[in-house]
Amino acid sequence: MTQTKQMRSDCPISFTLDVVGDKWSLLIVRDAIFANKQSFNEFLHSDEGIARNILADRLNRLTEKGIFAKQAHPMDGRKDAYSLTEKGIQLLPILLDMASWGNSYEQRTSKEFAVSNSRDRQQRIAAITKNLRQKIVIAQ
Amino acid sequence: MTQTKQMRSDCPISFTLDVVGDKWSLLIVRDAIFANKQSFNEFLHSDEGIARNILADRLNRLTEKGIFAKQAHPMDGRKDAYSLTEKGIQLLPILLDMASWGNSYEQRTSKEFAVSNSRDRQQRIAAITKNLRQKIVIAQ
Repeated sequence: MTQTKQMRSDCPISFTLDVVGDKWSLLIVRDAIFANKQSFNEFLHSDEGIARNILADRLNRLTEKGIFAKQAHPMDGRKDAYSLTEKGIQLLPILLDMASWGNSYEQRTSKEFAVSNSRDRQQRIAAITKNLRQKIVIAQ
Repeated sequence: MTQTKQMRSDCPISFTLDVVGDKWSLLIVRDAIFANKQSFNEFLHSDEGIARNILADRLNRLTEKGIFAKQAHPMDGRKDAYSLTEKGIQLLPILLDMASWGNSYEQRTSKEFAVSNSRDRQQRIAAITKNLRQKIVIAQ
């Protein structure tokens, strides 16, 4: 459990980076939040072209860390479905800020996650969070 | 230049992760923003114990990517000083959100970066950004 694990420091930013500080984990969370992906094959088919072994590793890690809960897929019991926990849903503000920074410094990026101001940001977070929380309940 | 480089996708989150998606880069930016660090040796002495070769690599990368500007240290011209650019300063919201997430999910983390609500967050971002921008001007 997290409580007994050694931390690099008592810094909460360092703690967060220990969980999602790599090039892929937050893209997987992005696809769960914004593209409603649940299965290994769905996550495998993202534009960034994640390799199968990296995806398998990250899904295991993110499940161990309590970002995803793994269960039998509702449409096909032989497959696993990964659904976001509350802890996973709470990564949304970080994703929106990363999108905003990317939009500011690379013109060619898509504007699909853009928020116009701090009020719009809060409203988007509230609406998306509410929607995702309903899925947690349905999945259980 | 960024404009001619290949991107994994047009996703702005993916773009941001290509720049700072690792365990160390955002800790270095954290130390520049909150602890006023500028020199290699200052960055080397953080609680997380970054290795010299990793620090050297990340400072070079972050300078190439325009997060830091490198110049002669004002107190000792034989040393380099790394100062945040506007592009680096704009990573602050991501850091505050990561701190907030870390505080929520690991009790043992320090509360030094905690914000109480969205209004407090906006005010903190504005105040810290203003202060950091003044240093850009002084450094040039």
